[in-house]
Amino acid sequence: MSAPLDFYFDFSSPYGYLAAARIDEIAARHGRGVNWRPFLLGAVMKTTGRKPLAAVPLVDEYMRRDLPRSARLHGIDFTLPQKFPTMTVAACRAYYWLREGDAGLARKVAWKIYAAYFAEGQDIADAETLLGICAAAGVDREKLAAALQDQRIKDLLRRETDAAAARKVFGSPFIVVDGEAFWGDDRLPQVERWLQSGGW
Amino acid sequence: MSAPLDFYFDFSSPYGYLAAARIDEIAARHGRGVNWRPFLLGAVMKTTGRKPLAAVPLVDEYMRRDLPRSARLHGIDFTLPQKFPTMTVAACRAYYWLREGDAGLARKVAWKIYAAYFAEGQDIADAETLLGICAAAGVDREKLAAALQDQRIKDLLRRETDAAAARKVFGSPFIVVDGEAFWGDDRLPQVERWLQSGGW
Repeated sequence: MSAPLDFYFDFSSPYGYLAAARIDEIAARHGRGVNWRPFLLGAVMKTTGRKPLAAVPLVDEYMRRDLPRSARLHGIDFTLPQKFPTMTVAACRAYYWLREGDAGLARKVAWKIYAAYFAEGQDIADAETLLGICAAAGVDREKLAAALQDQRIKDLLRRETDAAAARKVFGSPFIVVDGEAFWGDDRLPQVERWLQSGGW
Repeated sequence: MSAPLDFYFDFSSPYGYLAAARIDEIAARHGRGVNWRPFLLGAVMKTTGRKPLAAVPLVDEYMRRDLPRSARLHGIDFTLPQKFPTMTVAACRAYYWLREGDAGLARKVAWKIYAAYFAEGQDIADAETLLGICAAAGVDREKLAAALQDQRIKDLLRRETDAAAARKVFGSPFIVVDGEAFWGDDRLPQVERWLQSGGW
């Protein structure tokens, strides 16, 4: 089989970022592509009733140690941003608008946005900041600014988030390989194993 | 250094069980022992405000697929019990009472209790069932039955659970290696790496 993996993530999810840094390479080792599918985790959390990790006592403290430790282990540049979590609606809209014209560019820009937030601490919720990140990656700034306000693009993101919810995606990162669901950055070894063997 | 690892777990935690099946072997590869420290996760969850995974929509459904999948990968016998989660006060008391006299026996019995629940589906909350599991492992049934009602043993478990909470243990399994905390069965590869290198 050569269907791409579905890689669901929220741009404000640090474990999603750690997975984003590695998922394409893992898939490529097994001749697969990756369909990057950012969505709004907050909307899905209304179903689970769960709070963001940063809002949970003790878990938040642990996460602030676990994240840089896990990032170092994989050689990924990482600093938890001062403003965390943040709003990711604009980042998602930018991605889906770009994907309509050039999926490769959209994928490249998605990574730039993620890295701007989690490696450089830029506030990706700020429209000017986001436009600057995308423009530096070769995106037409004026067209993107218009797209971010376009009702059609707003609806497109809503449909994508609804589609994630319908597929019972409840966390970030969330990876689906040939119908098999894996939740969390720490499931990447199992994802790779599944790609190798088609199951166990 | 040769200090033992601290292995915190709740007898009702399936991911704790998956870790229990492997932690001693991992530690032994690096010349370490393991201090098994069962505690009452429910008491600690009052601090985090979190619900058990089984009580969270979507997460519960995912867990029911992820658990046997992870167990198969590691060759661990596993079936989620019909009665899940269950009460683990008696199992914890049995462990700490046994540990006073024979830490090796206590460790062996802890594993038997865990396996009775997660591999055989026995109801470890039931006193007669628990006594039977322990007796089969060589424990004096009458003395244990008395110990389960002994105020001193009740207080001992309370102190152990308070000590876990004081150390900010908020989940199961939770492993501390030379002061470094790792949460979750999926952190065992990092635990092993830490034992190898003393950090990174």
